[in-house]
Amino acid sequence: MAQLVPSKVFLVRGCGRHKEKLVSFEQALREAGIAPFNLVRVSSIFPPHARFVPKAAGLRHLDLGQILFVVLSENATDEPGCLISASVGAAVPDDPSHYGYLAEHSDVGKSQREISLHTEYLAAEMLATKLGHRLREPEPGRPAGSFRISNGMSLKTRSATQTAKGEKGMWTTAIAAAVLIIEA
Amino acid sequence: MAQLVPSKVFLVRGCGRHKEKLVSFEQALREAGIAPFNLVRVSSIFPPHARFVPKAAGLRHLDLGQILFVVLSENATDEPGCLISASVGAAVPDDPSHYGYLAEHSDVGKSQREISLHTEYLAAEMLATKLGHRLREPEPGRPAGSFRISNGMSLKTRSATQTAKGEKGMWTTAIAAAVLIIEA
Amino acid sequence: MAQLVPSKVFLVRGCGRHKEKLVSFEQALREAGIAPFNLVRVSSIFPPHARFVPKAAGLRHLDLGQILFVVLSENATDEPGCLISASVGAAVPDDPSHYGYLAEHSDVGKSQREISLHTEYLAAEMLATKLGHRLREPEPGRPAGSFRISNGMSLKTRSATQTAKGEKGMWTTAIAAAVLIIEA
Repeated sequence: MAQLVPSKVFLVRGCGRHKEKLVSFEQALREAGIAPFNLVRVSSIFPPHARFVPKAAGLRHLDLGQILFVVLSENATDEPGCLISASVGAAVPDDPSHYGYLAEHSDVGKSQREISLHTEYLAAEMLATKLGHRLREPEPGRPAGSFRISNGMSLKTRSATQTAKGEKGMWTTAIAAAVLIIEA
Repeated sequence: MAQLVPSKVFLVRGCGRHKEKLVSFEQALREAGIAPFNLVRVSSIFPPHARFVPKAAGLRHLDLGQILFVVLSENATDEPGCLISASVGAAVPDDPSHYGYLAEHSDVGKSQREISLHTEYLAAEMLATKLGHRLREPEPGRPAGSFRISNGMSLKTRSATQTAKGEKGMWTTAIAAAVLIIEA
Repeated sequence: MAQLVPSKVFLVRGCGRHKEKLVSFEQALREAGIAPFNLVRVSSIFPPHARFVPKAAGLRHLDLGQILFVVLSENATDEPGCLISASVGAAVPDDPSHYGYLAEHSDVGKSQREISLHTEYLAAEMLATKLGHRLREPEPGRPAGSFRISNGMSLKTRSATQTAKGEKGMWTTAIAAAVLIIEA
């Protein structure tokens, strides 16, 4: 058998609410589109030559009930007003023969924008330190999510971040995931 | 490669005791019959067209030491007299082209019957909310484990629940699992 | 599809430090040599007829970014001077048609030698209790890591243990892993 190497990746996020914590988690997966699969958590590599696909295109590769490998971030609260977040970020080198990184991060009390930036930073930092170099601050005028590393390599980041506020008498769950597709 | 889709499922449960927590967990797996495998935890779908098989028939499909995907509930205590429980429940629609749900639940101080009913309710509730409908109370005279959803769909539930009382000077672990078999 | 049965195993360990906990974990994986893979945690069987291979030989079987099944022990601290350890141990019967055990264990304040012995004991104890027998103390003059079980079976143990001391202002992570290779 060939090794199990993912070749396509897509990012999703969702929020769920229910008086049962497990059902609120399920509803968050449902909003994210990945409820009908048997999820297995992995850490945290964007394989060489893999590429991002839109969620709808990615889902078409999958069979209901299948084992699905995901980098998953989750966060849950039953405290009214508590602002939770769950985020996954990716940092992928422009050179597709290098692998990239997927990071997961969750927090409390932070805005969606703050969390997204931090998760993308984590993924980019893992890639930069891997190469034994430092991450450079983005130059003015360069688009967000586009970094350089001190050795000259370029990388791009992206993320999916779900924030949600706790409500009285129920569980609120936020999830974000990078879904790894292994093809025939 | 085809996607990894489980086609057979069986439920198991077991209890273990040992002064080392890890060994008590191992002994619970042993009593359940799934100790000789490399377990990977998944959540929580009963795939379309999958079917339940007896434990003995299910085990015959497996090779010692193989990777085995399971929905696993576990609970452990070192407190004498503490009543722990671990349970997995399944809710499967009568129409085999629909997928069903596997739920795991653990608790303290509850009877085996209470926990079984709750875990089956959780699985049934996930299926009902998935369909955007409400779970109906079982009609009088219908067998336990047989539900209807407000859209008229029928489903059946079942569960495996292990309860155990903590003993002095050792760890007690209860486990319950739904084992997912992927066939050639 | 054939079942997923690992046929080769190797042990690794590593330590990482970074102000972000996630990055320190990543750096520990990197020192261990298993950072470029998507790790899935399993418990805890050394399959029949599997064999240990050196890390370098094992890594040659793997593709970057692949799903990799591991028994993983991890431990992290941000407390200066705190001595953490992470360890995996294996107990493998001399008869290769029997399966063996992989154990993971982590602790605080113990020496590398203490932890290694304890993790190997855990793995050997799981194997002995599996056989319904007791582990015998090694006879004087027998090499370390060589045990007998009261039914006469011989087994050998080995382990990989990483210890590390916390440093001020950063996270320190220690990991140890048994890597399971599934071949074609």
